Amino acid sequence: MPATLAELAARFGCELHGNGNSIVDGVGTLANAGARALTFLANPQYRTQLKQTRAAAVVLEQRFQADCPVAALVSANPYATYASIARFLHPARAPEPGIHPTAVVSGDATVAATAQIGAHVFIGPGSAIADAVVIEPGTIIAANVTIGAATRICARVAVMDHSRIGERCVVHPGAVIGSAGFGYAREESGWLAVPQLGRAVIGNDVDIGANTTIDRGTIDDTVIESGVKIDNLVQIAHNVRIGAHTAIAAMSGVAGSTTIGQRCMIGGAVVMVGHISICDDVMVTFHSTVLRSITESGTYSSGIDADKAARWRRNAARLRRLDDQLKRK
Amino acid sequence: MPATLAELAARFGCELHGNGNSIVDGVGTLANAGARALTFLANPQYRTQLKQTRAAAVVLEQRFQADCPVAALVSANPYATYASIARFLHPARAPEPGIHPTAVVSGDATVAATAQIGAHVFIGPGSAIADAVVIEPGTIIAANVTIGAATRICARVAVMDHSRIGERCVVHPGAVIGSAGFGYAREESGWLAVPQLGRAVIGNDVDIGANTTIDRGTIDDTVIESGVKIDNLVQIAHNVRIGAHTAIAAMSGVAGSTTIGQRCMIGGAVVMVGHISICDDVMVTFHSTVLRSITESGTYSSGIDADKAARWRRNAARLRRLDDQLKRK
Amino acid sequence: MPATLAELAARFGCELHGNGNSIVDGVGTLANAGARALTFLANPQYRTQLKQTRAAAVVLEQRFQADCPVAALVSANPYATYASIARFLHPARAPEPGIHPTAVVSGDATVAATAQIGAHVFIGPGSAIADAVVIEPGTIIAANVTIGAATRICARVAVMDHSRIGERCVVHPGAVIGSAGFGYAREESGWLAVPQLGRAVIGNDVDIGANTTIDRGTIDDTVIESGVKIDNLVQIAHNVRIGAHTAIAAMSGVAGSTTIGQRCMIGGAVVMVGHISICDDVMVTFHSTVLRSITESGTYSSGIDADKAARWRRNAARLRRLDDQLKRK
Repeated sequence: MPATLAELAARFGCELHGNGNSIVDGVGTLANAGARALTFLANPQYRTQLKQTRAAAVVLEQRFQADCPVAALVSANPYATYASIARFLHPARAPEPGIHPTAVVSGDATVAATAQIGAHVFIGPGSAIADAVVIEPGTIIAANVTIGAATRICARVAVMDHSRIGERCVVHPGAVIGSAGFGYAREESGWLAVPQLGRAVIGNDVDIGANTTIDRGTIDDTVIESGVKIDNLVQIAHNVRIGAHTAIAAMSGVAGSTTIGQRCMIGGAVVMVGHISICDDVMVTFHSTVLRSITESGTYSSGIDADKAARWRRNAARLRRLDDQLKRK
Repeated sequence: MPATLAELAARFGCELHGNGNSIVDGVGTLANAGARALTFLANPQYRTQLKQTRAAAVVLEQRFQADCPVAALVSANPYATYASIARFLHPARAPEPGIHPTAVVSGDATVAATAQIGAHVFIGPGSAIADAVVIEPGTIIAANVTIGAATRICARVAVMDHSRIGERCVVHPGAVIGSAGFGYAREESGWLAVPQLGRAVIGNDVDIGANTTIDRGTIDDTVIESGVKIDNLVQIAHNVRIGAHTAIAAMSGVAGSTTIGQRCMIGGAVVMVGHISICDDVMVTFHSTVLRSITESGTYSSGIDADKAARWRRNAARLRRLDDQLKRK
Repeated sequence: MPATLAELAARFGCELHGNGNSIVDGVGTLANAGARALTFLANPQYRTQLKQTRAAAVVLEQRFQADCPVAALVSANPYATYASIARFLHPARAPEPGIHPTAVVSGDATVAATAQIGAHVFIGPGSAIADAVVIEPGTIIAANVTIGAATRICARVAVMDHSRIGERCVVHPGAVIGSAGFGYAREESGWLAVPQLGRAVIGNDVDIGANTTIDRGTIDDTVIESGVKIDNLVQIAHNVRIGAHTAIAAMSGVAGSTTIGQRCMIGGAVVMVGHISICDDVMVTFHSTVLRSITESGTYSSGIDADKAARWRRNAARLRRLDDQLKRK
């Protein structure tokens, strides 16, 4: 959907520097954008690429405007402005209502007339699919599930019994929502499975990454509040609660019954033990381990950067007897 | 399935304190259980919730009985007793025998008359599905697989060629069993794949979590012994052997040809290198790394709790030159 | 496919010690191979098993030949020679051309006559499947995807819009290729999704493990060059580029916009932050964290071996105040 720079500046509240009649019809990177593409500068790490750009225009902060060799759309939050414009130039496909002939919809499930149900989808008894939902091919919706309006469930997802997913969510391929969690009681003869009877309850505007797993609760529910964003290959165990607008990057995991507050940012490969509580506005950096509750907002870390192996071996050997060595001194 | 407290006490061997005619028809948490729900106290961390409970009855140890404001079922192992009662009150659905018309069963596969085969399931040539097996929608059973009696294979699982799964197992959605492992020989021109010819052999009463992967052996088999419980997003590489009744929590991984003993408890996000051996009755705590064989039972750790980022940066910088610093002193 | 030792020695360029007329028809391990099986000695750790072997013949280096109690095929690279012979004795199944009647192929997709399309496969509009491709049951190929000749896409894979996969690749079950990456701009009201418009572009001879996820690029492409081998449960984020012949073991992850060079060996459970660059010929050992660019080839580590829990607790407590303690001394 092409637009002039003047239109974009007006619609998205930017100050325009340059020819308002220039037309853009797509986006590009600073390095590779062509003459009809819009680009942006948000991460100052890429600032050196600004001078060489051949884009139609750059969305950037005021402080970088003087260095911009092409038209500029000045914004206080250039990344968000870029995202808004990119969504305008590349609108999401509208649902194509209808149920594919190979889909299996159980007799007492309900599917809105405006929903799109793909090939080889299965929808179990008692489930309800709201307006403008898209369910891509190969997805399984088990029994008594509800999917809210305008949510997209991508290919090959499994949403298990009794799960509730809100409106305008996106569930990426391969995710598993609402399967039974890992609960066993120890007996003399081995492990006895504890029935997993709660639900997975997902709010509105939640995104869930590819091959991520979210277990149903044991008795009460596992709860993902509205606006939460979860990346790929993340594990959310039973009875976890994640507060609104928290973001969790890939390969992170939250063990059972842990509670995370609102607006937290959990870096990639962060793991948290069970039965702890993280307050609002906590950031945890890449590949950290959280073993205790966090009660004060701020940034937390325990990742160790890789070093040359020979030196690391010596340091790690010292670490293994650190207490002894420091005691002796 | 409702029951009186007297019936439950008799059936599950508990000492009853309170009115044996009270009826329970479900379970709840200490905090949320209603007047017809059973609850339990196992983790002493939740002891403070006991006094406020409004449950019909609480399963607990003798030492907590005096603090219980409602009826009590006293047990030496309250979590296992609770699990048994919850299974009695909420029995698993029985299989509904039959093959869904959209399932594809290869001509020379065999499916027991009492098995339930869901929509869009594929069963490959030479595979055998025993009595009372449930295979949920979208699951792929490849060629020459055997699935033992009363096993449940959940939605969207892939069980690859030659795998053997025992009786009364549960395989959760998205798991992949028996795919080819990561074996390559280095040549001048790159990597040459080594044929993966062994099987994945799973015992009885094994549970396998959502999106977990278990590779087939390279030549001999990958073996998961009976009673093993494996959580979500776990990787079990080729030629691994896991001893009976070992439990492995989510996001853990075991590299190729490693052997784990019986009754081990592997905490979440624990990773073990290949070609090592872990003896029986080892516990490894959350997010530890195992780089050497363990020959003595006990508890092992190497996880580092996250700290305030500014302090951690200083400590991590010291760790990077620890050997030099301690040498100099 | 049986062969004599003389044939194998001639075909694979080995020096034969022993009876050239002996026939082998399969492979085995040093410990378990029977009288018609070939085995190998590559990892010297297994050297002690050589003397007891009852195999037909052992592929090994010259230096071990004197210790071999049975026939020997001497090779400078015994593991690669073994792999070549095993591939010869156990050839991969040829594709069985045709489209299963339950597969759904969109009207404007193209499928080569020599391709094999399994049950319940979906192929979206504009996609092109080349000669001798095998697509196993339950796999979803979305819109405008291309799959190169002789590639095998295993069961229950999802290849999302606009992905390009080269020739002779293997994509293992449950993998997700080309789904949208984790890109959000922060706004006052929460997170705004940034459109993910680039592609996932996979070279030739690439293997991708079970339940691994590879995101499409944000604007430019995510690129996996030819000859790369990726194990199970690996996360490759948007805009990552991985150089030719690099191998990445299971449970590793590469965050967004990071570049990895050629011929790197990334051990299991290694995680790398985003926006960094790793040069050619880098090895990173098991469960290390990479937080900065690496500009010099060599081996890098930060994994910490688990220790007895009581001792580790004391050492970890010292680590938490390491900077203070070393300052004071």
